[in-house]
Amino acid sequence: MRWPEVKPEHYYGSELNRFIAEYCTRRMTCINVDCLLVKNDQKKIRFIEYKHQNEFLPASQLRALKVVQLITSQPLNGWSSRVFVVRGDYPFAEGAEICSINDLKIVKVNRENLIRWLNFEEELNLLVNMV
Amino acid sequence: MRWPEVKPEHYYGSELNRFIAEYCTRRMTCINVDCLLVKNDQKKIRFIEYKHQNEFLPASQLRALKVVQLITSQPLNGWSSRVFVVRGDYPFAEGAEICSINDLKIVKVNRENLIRWLNFEEELNLLVNMV
Repeated sequence: MRWPEVKPEHYYGSELNRFIAEYCTRRMTCINVDCLLVKNDQKKIRFIEYKHQNEFLPASQLRALKVVQLITSQPLNGWSSRVFVVRGDYPFAEGAEICSINDLKIVKVNRENLIRWLNFEEELNLLVNMV
Repeated sequence: MRWPEVKPEHYYGSELNRFIAEYCTRRMTCINVDCLLVKNDQKKIRFIEYKHQNEFLPASQLRALKVVQLITSQPLNGWSSRVFVVRGDYPFAEGAEICSINDLKIVKVNRENLIRWLNFEEELNLLVNMV
């Protein structure tokens, strides 16, 4: 017999996620998406998964993000969408690595350019090698 | 002068969300998505925002979810997507209300049917009036 695993508070993100983990099928993937950015005046959205510098991205999570990238890849009514993983440690004095799920290319940005990118002031391809 | 607002731990969900709240433009919406369900064998995904029974859904959040519904509304490579708000209290003895962002219709389900729906065993339209 194993003792039930004690999960720290907030482990599940929401009570629905806890319910799914406890009572629903394991034959699906359930993740939360850290950050959905919506920029109305540019009609752009970004799904962003955040990881600490040395944090592992589970394969199931990467597969889920790739499905989101696929299903959002066609612009609709002028809206377009991209999916990213951002890796770094708050307060991002060392900048961050931004991985586009579209092509799995990784761009290193300094803190200033991270902010400009998050603000939708600059697209990722223009920030390459600007660390 | 106002004292800086002290946010409880985990308020921001992730350190990236905290960074965005503190250093980035307010001219965009930043939310997290509680639950992304991916059912590979059915090629279906669901974005689910969870709310307690009496919790408010901010207008900016609803607008963001509607954009996600829009941009994911076209099936691609066999994959399809829907966006929902699930309202109820763990452990959902009273069931839950499931609101489809597509048409804003609300379906009340009991606990058993909530689990069947979450498991992708049944679509929402077949669960109407089955409380």
